[in-house]
Amino acid sequence: MPQSSMIVIGERINGMFRDVKRAIRKRDPEPIQQLALDQVKAGADLLDVNVGAASSRPEKAMQWLVKTIQEVTDTPLTLDNPKLEIIQAGLEVVKHPPLINSTNADPERLEIYLQLALEHNASLLCLTMDKSGVPQDVNRRVECAAVIVSTAQVMGLPMERLYIDPIILPVNCAQEQPGFILEALSQFRYLSDPPPHLVVGLSNVSQGAPERSLINRTCLVLCMAAGLDAAILDPFDTELMDAMITADVLLNRQIYSDSYLKAYRSR
Amino acid sequence: MPQSSMIVIGERINGMFRDVKRAIRKRDPEPIQQLALDQVKAGADLLDVNVGAASSRPEKAMQWLVKTIQEVTDTPLTLDNPKLEIIQAGLEVVKHPPLINSTNADPERLEIYLQLALEHNASLLCLTMDKSGVPQDVNRRVECAAVIVSTAQVMGLPMERLYIDPIILPVNCAQEQPGFILEALSQFRYLSDPPPHLVVGLSNVSQGAPERSLINRTCLVLCMAAGLDAAILDPFDTELMDAMITADVLLNRQIYSDSYLKAYRSR
Repeated sequence: MPQSSMIVIGERINGMFRDVKRAIRKRDPEPIQQLALDQVKAGADLLDVNVGAASSRPEKAMQWLVKTIQEVTDTPLTLDNPKLEIIQAGLEVVKHPPLINSTNADPERLEIYLQLALEHNASLLCLTMDKSGVPQDVNRRVECAAVIVSTAQVMGLPMERLYIDPIILPVNCAQEQPGFILEALSQFRYLSDPPPHLVVGLSNVSQGAPERSLINRTCLVLCMAAGLDAAILDPFDTELMDAMITADVLLNRQIYSDSYLKAYRSR
Repeated sequence: MPQSSMIVIGERINGMFRDVKRAIRKRDPEPIQQLALDQVKAGADLLDVNVGAASSRPEKAMQWLVKTIQEVTDTPLTLDNPKLEIIQAGLEVVKHPPLINSTNADPERLEIYLQLALEHNASLLCLTMDKSGVPQDVNRRVECAAVIVSTAQVMGLPMERLYIDPIILPVNCAQEQPGFILEALSQFRYLSDPPPHLVVGLSNVSQGAPERSLINRTCLVLCMAAGLDAAILDPFDTELMDAMITADVLLNRQIYSDSYLKAYRSR
């Protein structure tokens, strides 16, 4: 089990949110910079940067977002896009070693992204899927994770720069999936010593469900028991952050004091 | 992993609470009966009955409590006392097969209680400790659990009537302990197939801490990821119950619907 506290990747700078989409289209830096600063204040260790479908020239939009955020904070960024050329555009302007989000276990794609991460001193997030799609069971996820870990080891990416994501599916569509995620996470931990980081894109579990915040925070705590040490999430969700901080304390990854919530927030 | 939803043991009928203590001393049935009915309504599957230090004649007090509760509900009871004679007093008047709470892994004591459970068609809660005290590590807890499981098997108590409790210690005193509990629970599951029930007295983890409810519900969800399927807790803590119900849904132990919280509560 990882001994350090959870790595929080703030999800809010994403073109799928209306305020971000509008700011990207108008090239208005203020809302983006405010979201960056507010997320850091709320506990984000990294800031996810995703242009979404906000722009017809996503490479330019990614570069504008990266530069705009870097004007106000040194917090490392997560360059989030399925397309290589948009990631590369972000890498051209990013100042601090970022997390590249994401590739998968398809060997051809995986090697290209590992090479990219090595060249840019970046970390790399890999989804446990390949050309045949998102696994519906535990074993295929573990197989994909094993390919990812072994390829990273062969190519020389240290495990502390590798993030593996088992891909959470919405609980309202596939109720057995969160349990499979827990089992997969438990097994990922044993793929190497030290293990890679284990990460989820948390909000996906509650897509379309009325009780989103409750489902998100409960799922996060369950995953933390199974070894999760990073998550892409909404740091403005105070109850989610409270649950995460408390789980870190109970897992002995943060020091207990009677004011541990306050202590975390005034880091 | 157990496939049924969490077994909730309501903790509120305990002489350590002022209202219960007063009711026991005055032999006033109303507060006790109300607590019984309200806990059942809030989701309790069993009701813990503990005279605490409320009476100089605890055998009589236990019998009065059991009879008083049975006047208003058929919900099974947990006879909770460290002394054999007080458990026996409760057994004399209890109508439905109860859960006996508790014995430990000390062989002499364990055999007496197993015999008692067999004679009364009762279930039995066993703490993973023995004459040398409460274990501070994982291995001693697992050793005690192995003694408990194997003795129960030899004497013929079915696993569905055995509850094993790894003894949660307050996080503010011993911060590494909750992590040990998770690891111990994970290992207990493999002691037999089917496994025994795994239970904790939840509130102990937050003794003396300001954020009791937050710590309790976060600890419960962590333990559920490790296989916990029963807990002695306060069913009046709505946020705790919400977290528990949601974890059951995520672990596929209750059916998801958009109104799953309401569905649980209107069982």
